[in-house]
Amino acid sequence: MSDAVTMDKIVALCRRRGFVFPSSEIYGGLGSSYDYGHYGVLLKENVKNAWLRAMVQERDDIVALDSSIILHPRVWEASGHVGGFTDPLVDCRTCKNRYRADHLEQSQCGKRPSKHPGETSDCDLTAPRQFNLMFETRVGAVEETGVPVYLRPETAQGIFINFKNVAQIARRKPPFGIAQVGKSFRNEITPGNFIFRTLEFEQMEMEYFVPPDEAEEWYRYWIDERLRWHVDLGVRESHLRVRPHDADELSHYSKATSDIEYHFPMGWSELEGVANRGAYDLSQQSEHSGTKLEWVDAGTGERFVPHAIEPALGLNRSMLTFLIDAYDEEVVADRERTVLRLHPRLAPVKAAVLPLIGKSDEMVATARSLFDELRRVLSVEYDDGGAIGRRYRRQDEIGTPWGLTIDEQTLGDDTVTIRDRDSLAQERLPLGRVREHLLDRLAEPWSSPKTD
Amino acid sequence: MSDAVTMDKIVALCRRRGFVFPSSEIYGGLGSSYDYGHYGVLLKENVKNAWLRAMVQERDDIVALDSSIILHPRVWEASGHVGGFTDPLVDCRTCKNRYRADHLEQSQCGKRPSKHPGETSDCDLTAPRQFNLMFETRVGAVEETGVPVYLRPETAQGIFINFKNVAQIARRKPPFGIAQVGKSFRNEITPGNFIFRTLEFEQMEMEYFVPPDEAEEWYRYWIDERLRWHVDLGVRESHLRVRPHDADELSHYSKATSDIEYHFPMGWSELEGVANRGAYDLSQQSEHSGTKLEWVDAGTGERFVPHAIEPALGLNRSMLTFLIDAYDEEVVADRERTVLRLHPRLAPVKAAVLPLIGKSDEMVATARSLFDELRRVLSVEYDDGGAIGRRYRRQDEIGTPWGLTIDEQTLGDDTVTIRDRDSLAQERLPLGRVREHLLDRLAEPWSSPKTD
Repeated sequence: MSDAVTMDKIVALCRRRGFVFPSSEIYGGLGSSYDYGHYGVLLKENVKNAWLRAMVQERDDIVALDSSIILHPRVWEASGHVGGFTDPLVDCRTCKNRYRADHLEQSQCGKRPSKHPGETSDCDLTAPRQFNLMFETRVGAVEETGVPVYLRPETAQGIFINFKNVAQIARRKPPFGIAQVGKSFRNEITPGNFIFRTLEFEQMEMEYFVPPDEAEEWYRYWIDERLRWHVDLGVRESHLRVRPHDADELSHYSKATSDIEYHFPMGWSELEGVANRGAYDLSQQSEHSGTKLEWVDAGTGERFVPHAIEPALGLNRSMLTFLIDAYDEEVVADRERTVLRLHPRLAPVKAAVLPLIGKSDEMVATARSLFDELRRVLSVEYDDGGAIGRRYRRQDEIGTPWGLTIDEQTLGDDTVTIRDRDSLAQERLPLGRVREHLLDRLAEPWSSPKTD
Repeated sequence: MSDAVTMDKIVALCRRRGFVFPSSEIYGGLGSSYDYGHYGVLLKENVKNAWLRAMVQERDDIVALDSSIILHPRVWEASGHVGGFTDPLVDCRTCKNRYRADHLEQSQCGKRPSKHPGETSDCDLTAPRQFNLMFETRVGAVEETGVPVYLRPETAQGIFINFKNVAQIARRKPPFGIAQVGKSFRNEITPGNFIFRTLEFEQMEMEYFVPPDEAEEWYRYWIDERLRWHVDLGVRESHLRVRPHDADELSHYSKATSDIEYHFPMGWSELEGVANRGAYDLSQQSEHSGTKLEWVDAGTGERFVPHAIEPALGLNRSMLTFLIDAYDEEVVADRERTVLRLHPRLAPVKAAVLPLIGKSDEMVATARSLFDELRRVLSVEYDDGGAIGRRYRRQDEIGTPWGLTIDEQTLGDDTVTIRDRDSLAQERLPLGRVREHLLDRLAEPWSSPKTD
């Protein structure tokens, strides 16, 4: 990564190439909300699929779940969110802004932006009050106003309340896990680091249920396992670190938590959290629902409340991390290019089919026919507009690992040129071998071209 | 399909095998909400991917989008949802139930369930009042209570408000489309047909923007195209029909709409809607936002507001349709079996690896090694528990198209038996050819074994 990677450059690339737009932009936007354009959708899906593949498809011991966003409101009483999921906020009586009382030093005074609200007499601050971060709405038409419910602030509780159903059907004995990807909502005042923290966001959470005396061991296992996932998909090890929480940072439910932090442009910040939640959640949901959530051995009668180890990663934040870590600018043959050195499995487009010169009918027909063959199995693009150098740069900017050029020689000997995004090396391949070649390359481990 | 397919049988299978559970069940449930278990998640993802593949990957003219659930509230004023997205409801003063005034004949009186609320004097009904179907919540902490916003009741408006951004970046001239998959929410009184209609649901919507004088032609094109998608994925043509809306059924925005209906157990009902929305939405969002949403030819200066043709399909409803259409019960060699004749591309698990007799170390090692090879590219299961007949029936019930048995002969000649879910035919394949064989079979068109 060049030293010059800033959040502004990432935001600009995302807008320019349609990865991410501010949401509701034609109405002036809605703070901390973003919409994902074509390449953003493809990249986000690829990150999600890489997670599901590692968590579910390639393992024997983890099953998938997709629970509702609106759950029974008592779930959130049991979990402690109704009582305790709050931020302390203060109001400025002068500029009418509201701030997190514990983040005053990262905030700007509305009247004197060069100052923090706490260090200037222009801000006349109220005492802090606790505001719940859950969005509330009302469901049903049984009474005049319906029943108050919440948009889930985490997907995890949907896992805990389904523990019994899943354990019975999956015929599983701990250790086993339940993995879920889905949207969560938090009504937060955010510092505005693009898609790092947004009002609605997608979480990838997994609860790994273990015998209580194995919890510590599995906690360490999952920290290592999750760290490896980011690295295998191309994030530089030197930009990652593990930071265990101090005792006074721990959530009410947690026995131990470690953050996997990434070196974002604004500094080291949480990328993923791995928590040892103990028996807290299953016990709480058991107590409030009256349904025993425990594991019982049908043979021996042995029973216990499993402890839960939870790796929890924000999908949008993970996508942002891959973008930042992949972003590079370099000068090649006196021309600047911006290139996303994404792992090929994450790249929104795997290959671009580019007829080289002019648009002779025969060359276009050959290129279209290759494109039609490839798009049945891969996300590929066809582009015959403009100079070849410009087309390459467009593909470099969205991270397409391979360019396939069809030229005069193709019509003679049925070969195409394959250009490597990172090394810029070009080699010729028989037309009939392209599909297999790309599938093989995607299945291989990737040797990252990145330098620290 | 046997004549005996009832919704109860589908619900029972879904619970028994963990496709779908009632949501928040340990708290007594939350009406019309469901959670998806392991096979449900896999099936739903496969349906979604089949739609995205047909809509985006295999076409040149449609791009993907993923907009926010919470949009600026003025979006819903412009769309007409704040003013007009309502159901007429009546209350019974006796039993305190609430009913849709236009669905009284499908409802049960709370005191006399054998009667409709309208035909018995036990129900003392109020006059109908209009209730908006949008869930309302409040966002932000700028004022005491935040700003009122809505959970989107359709994904389509997220597409219209992003029209300009997408059209500019994708360098597209109509006709072109924008496709989106995501959750929507409607605070409805539902008749309780399992996942046919739920409070939160996933939509797959595509807006195809066309020159006004081509709208009628593209409307007909998309009805045919969408009908073909369901049939290609295995839904029987005899269970599908197209029903154009009468003039008095049309939504306020629609110039013409046709429902693709499926013969559900409760009768013919909407599976997918294809609507000609005309210029209504782009014009409304332009007017309310002050941003012109139109297409302008940079060369000629030609400009027009494109008309939108919209195929809109519920993901959950589509999954339900595939389940119902695939469900079969038959007697084979004096034993009953339940089998889901799902298209192999939709099946949650593509193949099961089953070591045949006992668990000799060598046989298990061979089976595990095949399993490990396959799961890198496909969703597969390993099962060595119980009699082989029981294991087959378990796979039949979840629709696994191929069973791979490892037996004594495997250890001698490195071949395995592949069993076909539908024909029950068995043939032997070299171990080293299994992976390629399965991938080839998945790429081929599927000849459905279903009879009308």
